[in-house]
Amino acid sequence: MTTWIQSVIDGIGPLDERAMREAEERLGQLTKPPGSLGRLEALAVRLAGITGVAVPPAPLKKAVVVMAADHGVCEEGVSAFPQEVTPQMVLNFLNGGAAINVLSRQTGADVVCVDIGVKGELKHEKLLSRKVRPQGTANIARGPAMSRGEAERAIAVGMELAAELYGQGYRLLATGEMGIGNTTPSAALLVVLAGLDVKEAVGRGTGVNEEGLLRKQDAVLRAIETNRPDPGDAMDALAKVGGLEIAGLAGLILGAAAKRCPVVVDGFISSVAALVACRMAPSARDYLIPSHLSGERGHRLVLQELGLEPMLHLEMRLGEGTGAALCFPLIDAAGGVLREMATFDSAGVSKG
Amino acid sequence: MTTWIQSVIDGIGPLDERAMREAEERLGQLTKPPGSLGRLEALAVRLAGITGVAVPPAPLKKAVVVMAADHGVCEEGVSAFPQEVTPQMVLNFLNGGAAINVLSRQTGADVVCVDIGVKGELKHEKLLSRKVRPQGTANIARGPAMSRGEAERAIAVGMELAAELYGQGYRLLATGEMGIGNTTPSAALLVVLAGLDVKEAVGRGTGVNEEGLLRKQDAVLRAIETNRPDPGDAMDALAKVGGLEIAGLAGLILGAAAKRCPVVVDGFISSVAALVACRMAPSARDYLIPSHLSGERGHRLVLQELGLEPMLHLEMRLGEGTGAALCFPLIDAAGGVLREMATFDSAGVSKG
Repeated sequence: MTTWIQSVIDGIGPLDERAMREAEERLGQLTKPPGSLGRLEALAVRLAGITGVAVPPAPLKKAVVVMAADHGVCEEGVSAFPQEVTPQMVLNFLNGGAAINVLSRQTGADVVCVDIGVKGELKHEKLLSRKVRPQGTANIARGPAMSRGEAERAIAVGMELAAELYGQGYRLLATGEMGIGNTTPSAALLVVLAGLDVKEAVGRGTGVNEEGLLRKQDAVLRAIETNRPDPGDAMDALAKVGGLEIAGLAGLILGAAAKRCPVVVDGFISSVAALVACRMAPSARDYLIPSHLSGERGHRLVLQELGLEPMLHLEMRLGEGTGAALCFPLIDAAGGVLREMATFDSAGVSKG
Repeated sequence: MTTWIQSVIDGIGPLDERAMREAEERLGQLTKPPGSLGRLEALAVRLAGITGVAVPPAPLKKAVVVMAADHGVCEEGVSAFPQEVTPQMVLNFLNGGAAINVLSRQTGADVVCVDIGVKGELKHEKLLSRKVRPQGTANIARGPAMSRGEAERAIAVGMELAAELYGQGYRLLATGEMGIGNTTPSAALLVVLAGLDVKEAVGRGTGVNEEGLLRKQDAVLRAIETNRPDPGDAMDALAKVGGLEIAGLAGLILGAAAKRCPVVVDGFISSVAALVACRMAPSARDYLIPSHLSGERGHRLVLQELGLEPMLHLEMRLGEGTGAALCFPLIDAAGGVLREMATFDSAGVSKG
C-alpha cells in the first residue's frame, strides 16, 4: 500500500458520538411516537454521526459517481452484452439518456462519469478521463486482472475524486458503475473475500442464460485457481481477480469516509467494492448507507458480509447507481424530519 | 349499500391493456438489460394500466389524504397516547409540523386533512370538516362502532373527496390517517375479514406495553363477540368494529379507482381500509400501489391478504401516510424512466 493511500485510510475517524446523541434527543422531542419512524430515525442518527452535524441545515449536495471500465474476462463469454456497450453506455450517461441520469435528475443529484479503464479512446467534455489501464483489465481466467501497482493507482483515483468532489461542495455520494462483464470479477472477489461457494456468488448479471451462467462460474473458478488471491489481502485479491471500476469505487468510499461524507452503496458490484474498502479499512463501514436489495444472486450475501440492511426491495439489477439514487429522497427525508418537524412542546401535543 | 355508492363501485373499470402493452414495449426499447429495473418496470406498466396513458407527460399531481377520527374503544386503555392527541395532531398537520408534512413537502405532495369524526369541535381554514359522527365511534368492545348508515356516509365522504381532488387535478393519491386508538378497530377488521387469530392481528400501535397489548387483544375479542360482524359483508364489519377514518379511506380508494387514479396505500390502518374497499369491489385492488412494510405486527398479513408486496422496508409505524409519501419518488421514477430514457436506437447502444 502506498504511503498516500495509507494516510487517507488513517484519516478515517470514528462517528461523532456527540452529534448522534443530539440527533437522538431531538428525534425524541418530535411529534411522533418514540421510534415510530423506524430506520429513518436510525439513518438520521447515522448521518449526524458521519457528518458531525446533528440537524442538517439543508439537503446534502449529491453526486452519483459512475466508474466505467472494461474486463478482459469477456473473452470467456460471461456477459449477455458485447463489450462495445461499455463505451456506448458511457456516452449515453454523458448525454443524459440512461436510467441513472433520469433518476439522478429526479432526486437532485449530479452524475459524475469516470473512465478508469474503458477499452479504447473515449472523449467527451463532461467525461473525467482517469484511465489506469487503456485496454481495461486482462482476462482473470488466465492471469491477474492488473498489477498490484495498477490496483493501487485505481484506488488512488477514487480517493482523489472523493476529495475533489468534496472540494466542489458535494456532501453525499453514491456509487455507480458500468463495465460489461463486471459481475464476474465482483463474484470472484466475493468468493475470495467472504469464503463463499462459487455457485452462491455468481448470478446472471445483465441476463445470461443457463450456459452463460455455467461459463461465468467456470471463469470465476479458473480465476481463483490461476491467480491464488490472498483472502487476507484485499489489494492482492483486487489486483488479481478484480476490476478497475471496482477498485475506483473502493477508493471513492475510503476517500469519502476520510472526508466524513456518507456514501450510498448501490447493488452487487458496488457492494463488492464496499467490501474491498472495508477490508482495507474496517471503519469505512460506518460511512456506508445501504440502498436496495438487487435481483443479482450474490447481493444479499455481500450485504450480510457488510452488515448492511437494504431499504428498497425492487428486484432491480441494472447497476449504474440506480438503486442508490432512489434512496436519496429517503436520506433527504431523514434530514428533513430533524430539521422541520414540530416538537411536542412547540405544537402543543400531549406526550404518551 | 346506497345506490350512489353502488354506482361508484360499478364505475371501477379494468386496467387499460393497450396502455400497459405500450408501456411494456417502450420499456423493452430503453437502454438497459430487459427487466433490469425490476419492480420499477412493473410499477410503470401498472400506472399505465391505471391511468390509460403509457408514457406520462409529466409527474402526477399528488395529495396525501389524512382522514382523522376518534375511537370510543380508547376507554379500554388500548393506546399509549391520550385521546386529546387526535385533534392536537390534526392541528399539527394543518400547521405543517408533522412528519407527513415534512415528507409531503419533500416529495412534492399536498396534505389534505379531513375531520371525519374527531371528538369535539375542530376549526381551521385548511381543514375539511366532514364529520359523520361528532364524538367519533362508540366503544366497539361494548357495542357497534356506528350504524350501517353512518358507515355508508363515511364511505361516501371518501368517494366524494376522491372526485373533488380529481376535479382539482390530483392524479395520485396516498392514504393517511390519524386517530388515537385506531390500530384496535383495524385489527378487529383484519381478524373478521381475513379470519385471523387475534394475537396475529393485534400489535403495539404507537407503543403500548405488554399489559396494554393484552388489553387490546381483549378489546378486539370482546368487540367481535359482542357485535358478531358478518365476515362476508364488509359494510357490516366496518360499521360494527371499524372506524370512521378507516371507512373514509376505503371510500377514497373506491372513488379514486372509479376515476382511474392510483392510490398509494400506507401502513397497517390504511391497508385494512384497502382490504375493506377490495371486499366491496375486488377490482379496486388493481388501483392500489403498495408502499412500505410497517413495523406494526399485523401489516404483513393484511398485505398478504391484498396480494401487495411492499417496496420500502424501514420498520416505520407512524401512519399519517408517511410510508406512502416516501414512495412518491419511486412512482415519479417509474414514469420518468418511460418518459426520459434513451432507446437503444436513439443512443446507438448495441443490444445483447
